[in-house]
Amino acid sequence: MTKGSLGIVETRQFTFGYTPEDALELECGQKLFPVTLAYETYGELNKDKSNAILICHTLTSDAHAAGYHEGHERPGWWDDMIGPGKAFDTDKYFVISSNVIGGCKGSTGPSSENPATGKPYGLDFPMTTVVDWVNSQKRLVDSFGIKKLFSVSGGSMGGMQVLQWIALYPEMVRSAIPIATAWKQSPQQLALDEVGRQAIMKDPDWNNGAYYGKAIPENGLSIARMLGHITYMSEASMEDKFSRKLRKGNFSFSFDTDFEVEGYLNYNGKAFVKRFDANSYLYITRAMNYCDVSKEKLIPPGKEIDTAFLLIAFKSDWLYPTWQIKEVAQFLMSCHVDTTYCEIKSTYGHDAFLLEFEEETRLVKHFLKRIAHGTGNSK
Amino acid sequence: MTKGSLGIVETRQFTFGYTPEDALELECGQKLFPVTLAYETYGELNKDKSNAILICHTLTSDAHAAGYHEGHERPGWWDDMIGPGKAFDTDKYFVISSNVIGGCKGSTGPSSENPATGKPYGLDFPMTTVVDWVNSQKRLVDSFGIKKLFSVSGGSMGGMQVLQWIALYPEMVRSAIPIATAWKQSPQQLALDEVGRQAIMKDPDWNNGAYYGKAIPENGLSIARMLGHITYMSEASMEDKFSRKLRKGNFSFSFDTDFEVEGYLNYNGKAFVKRFDANSYLYITRAMNYCDVSKEKLIPPGKEIDTAFLLIAFKSDWLYPTWQIKEVAQFLMSCHVDTTYCEIKSTYGHDAFLLEFEEETRLVKHFLKRIAHGTGNSK
Repeated sequence: MTKGSLGIVETRQFTFGYTPEDALELECGQKLFPVTLAYETYGELNKDKSNAILICHTLTSDAHAAGYHEGHERPGWWDDMIGPGKAFDTDKYFVISSNVIGGCKGSTGPSSENPATGKPYGLDFPMTTVVDWVNSQKRLVDSFGIKKLFSVSGGSMGGMQVLQWIALYPEMVRSAIPIATAWKQSPQQLALDEVGRQAIMKDPDWNNGAYYGKAIPENGLSIARMLGHITYMSEASMEDKFSRKLRKGNFSFSFDTDFEVEGYLNYNGKAFVKRFDANSYLYITRAMNYCDVSKEKLIPPGKEIDTAFLLIAFKSDWLYPTWQIKEVAQFLMSCHVDTTYCEIKSTYGHDAFLLEFEEETRLVKHFLKRIAHGTGNSK
Repeated sequence: MTKGSLGIVETRQFTFGYTPEDALELECGQKLFPVTLAYETYGELNKDKSNAILICHTLTSDAHAAGYHEGHERPGWWDDMIGPGKAFDTDKYFVISSNVIGGCKGSTGPSSENPATGKPYGLDFPMTTVVDWVNSQKRLVDSFGIKKLFSVSGGSMGGMQVLQWIALYPEMVRSAIPIATAWKQSPQQLALDEVGRQAIMKDPDWNNGAYYGKAIPENGLSIARMLGHITYMSEASMEDKFSRKLRKGNFSFSFDTDFEVEGYLNYNGKAFVKRFDANSYLYITRAMNYCDVSKEKLIPPGKEIDTAFLLIAFKSDWLYPTWQIKEVAQFLMSCHVDTTYCEIKSTYGHDAFLLEFEEETRLVKHFLKRIAHGTGNSK
């Protein structure tokens, strides 16, 4: 089968919670309603609704995981992995890619209109956690009449959602593929997020989150993004891409952009503020900080789950180092869960999960085939 | 010999370049005059002036390396290593600790008065590089009538100065002890510095460097410092110190300081702005970016040097990873230089060079003894 493109796709919106009774009950104790989730689907849901795969995205990404939006030249963020004949083969599977609430990509978030005031929520938006994200995604999955997902997958923050799905609804997940992720952030990850958030919140234009319709805190948000980029790459990939190359061949003996790596960061920081909302950056990183599905929070003592796992990590990833996902794999094995752990050699750092798609495709295809055939050490 | 304290010490100032003829000729082509260097000395210079050791400091440190300032409870930054009976034994050696120009700790820098205007230099201060630092330190050393330093040592940025001394004045250095350093920064290090600098320069209070006497860019400088702290620690030391401990036992479901690691960073960011000048942060990081004494810049082909080296790296240091100093050691060995390379196991990350003083003391004492006795594989 040749690998193909999904062609033109579009983002849709699913809204629920039109009444307080149907609201999303949040982990913080508040209720959110109405709730809109942006999502895309690829492929066809089969008759017994047993071929659905849910894809969860990263911090700054969105529901547009594959195919092309009308008039756009770049495909979705995981187009290398999703499509006809690809790892998540849309000739076989019905792929749902869901955005998260708290974001700014078509789902309810701090930039959405607060129905109580008619103005953007800003900081009145309640804290939404990974638990809340998964609960809202469950409503979306329910809306298709799907009782059990064939698989749930995602990298980085997407992987945290995968693990949270297992913690909340293990019986709804036949297989899980968390990639380059952790079941809780380390203090270093908490710290890096805090620096990004403080850069935003110390920007005078942030204005305690009430900047909509005014100057946006682009300085702070671009600083956060610049730092992010460093953590997504590795020492080796930075050396390959930039080394100490100068933009103009010599030093300016000033604070101008002399090194190519500086130009790259400044460019990406600037570009980011055009496509992402600063408050969403705060809410989403906070949700990741709070996420903790370690050990008995993932599988309570005595509970048996029949989800099969493929866990993938990348050697040069220092943001989500291999030990974090290995820890998950070891725990799953100790719980007699069908577990496959793979470490991919790569110099791309955390970004590897978006770039090492050939190796990932091999692993994911083989794994999904095994699950579909009901073979292996699964119970 | 029992290890003792130096007791009360004080920072002195050495000024040169009272006339344009005596100015410091900078790498950027400009002349700087007059130039003041803050420094401290410990121990006594012997008759033949052969027992002097120069200590070079880190990014945010100063000339106060050991002993106590009158009325202060905390000793100098490397007091564990410098004093009677310590690694740099002031009963034997005359230790000179020199500040760098461009800084804000008593040496000429952007916050100093520009004699041309009578106002603080701000961005009119010329770019001063590690070459310039070493050239100014040479004037200080010359002023004591010292022809050859028994040793030059320093960690991190201090280690870069050590290597720059070798590149410029190898015949003046009997032995060199660069610690946790590199002969040029990697793109990752360049990138981290750029994020810190942009945080400062995007702070509206920075005002293109002309903030003296007004509000200082404390938001930007504190962000830079917070990021710095993350890079000085390691994943393991952060886990040991903070793990995911909460300050108040539960989540605030807000952007308040929930995790202890956040409190630590915010506290240190805030404290830093009281003791360091934002422009100096820019100038000093830029100097580090520009420094490159790799390979033939350290020792030109065919040139022989009789400096003996002890190079020390720390396993968990990810800011200046062991491969960087190993690279220096390998080159030195290929040039038939008397070279000892030691890697110390430590979980402290880059900070280890300030904290693992017992192991460092053992290595440095043994090395200096060997050099003093003229034994070993030195030529």
